[in-house]
Amino acid sequence: MKLYDTPLAPNPRRVRWFMAEKGIDDIEVVTLNLIKGEHKTPEYLARTGLPNVPALELDDGTCITESVAICRYLESRYPEPNLFGRTPEETAVIEMWTRRAEMMVATPFMLGVRHTHPALAALETQDPHIAEYNKAAGLRALKVLDRRLAEAEWLAAGRLTIADIVAFVGLDFGRLIKLQPPPELTHVARWAAAMRARPAAQAGMPKPA
Amino acid sequence: MKLYDTPLAPNPRRVRWFMAEKGIDDIEVVTLNLIKGEHKTPEYLARTGLPNVPALELDDGTCITESVAICRYLESRYPEPNLFGRTPEETAVIEMWTRRAEMMVATPFMLGVRHTHPALAALETQDPHIAEYNKAAGLRALKVLDRRLAEAEWLAAGRLTIADIVAFVGLDFGRLIKLQPPPELTHVARWAAAMRARPAAQAGMPKPA
Repeated sequence: MKLYDTPLAPNPRRVRWFMAEKGIDDIEVVTLNLIKGEHKTPEYLARTGLPNVPALELDDGTCITESVAICRYLESRYPEPNLFGRTPEETAVIEMWTRRAEMMVATPFMLGVRHTHPALAALETQDPHIAEYNKAAGLRALKVLDRRLAEAEWLAAGRLTIADIVAFVGLDFGRLIKLQPPPELTHVARWAAAMRARPAAQAGMPKPA
Repeated sequence: MKLYDTPLAPNPRRVRWFMAEKGIDDIEVVTLNLIKGEHKTPEYLARTGLPNVPALELDDGTCITESVAICRYLESRYPEPNLFGRTPEETAVIEMWTRRAEMMVATPFMLGVRHTHPALAALETQDPHIAEYNKAAGLRALKVLDRRLAEAEWLAAGRLTIADIVAFVGLDFGRLIKLQPPPELTHVARWAAAMRARPAAQAGMPKPA
């Protein structure tokens, strides 16, 4: 297998974090520079169909994009520690929280950054109204995570799962534009500190200058 | 099990369609009126945590929201016909196309409708800029589906899967505001006609006046 990766962007970071939690270190990683358009070359598009990173090339040549689909496939090959659920019931609760985290928090945060940060103008026709709308929506939705984390240490299943990875990576991407949880969300703050302290938080991240 | 459902909205329709493809008819269905706020009562929120429909109450009392999580759980209980994949490789391709369909087409179409249709003003603070942005994005992304459907009868795995259900239900919701694929997307048109002709397309839908 071969993973097409890029630093900084949140979706590839989900996969690197997931691999680090499982100790996966035997997959070849190819690093692409998005600002140089290395995800838009004819060779890359012939593999993936869309200019999306990350992508996982399977042994039969099939290329999978979409970070959560990639992680679920990796779970089938590297089952421990379990991050997607051991029973259908647990899998359903984890998927529910993964989707809530993604659609209510991670996607709005990501759109807020992409439509705001000057360095990303090469990747997106930036629209200030879309930026503000999404930043406000993401911040509002953090209250849902805070309520959940008031009653549980992790978002689902009583342990770290893909849901926490998706939520935290989205949240942490907001730091690029200083979009961060308000301090009164103390349960989010406790959980975010626990996430940031995990060794997987550093996987493939640029070293601070 | 008990399914909390509502007519017209696209996410509940995904689940009804999925159940109809599998012939599931032994789950109690409770129909909620969203305009009357029946998804915001203290009793409902105590079950689901969020005012989201659909929700599936499992036999142990756990409530699952998020249509794709509900469908994946139902697949574990009613395995045939398979709609999520038989092998990890097939599951990954189906999930990739489900996510592409959802994020590139179904969600923009849904947001376009919610921010435009006068009857939905009770559910959403409507924002014309968000409406137009999403309608344009959804229409652009249809070209990706058309390219895919030029090379394959269905979006993934050579048969109808959850990816087709998510894509078509999103697309069909656009009819409420006459947001529909341009006729030059002939492969989308052929596939949409095949989807509309399936008996599951009518599952729980209001009868035409």
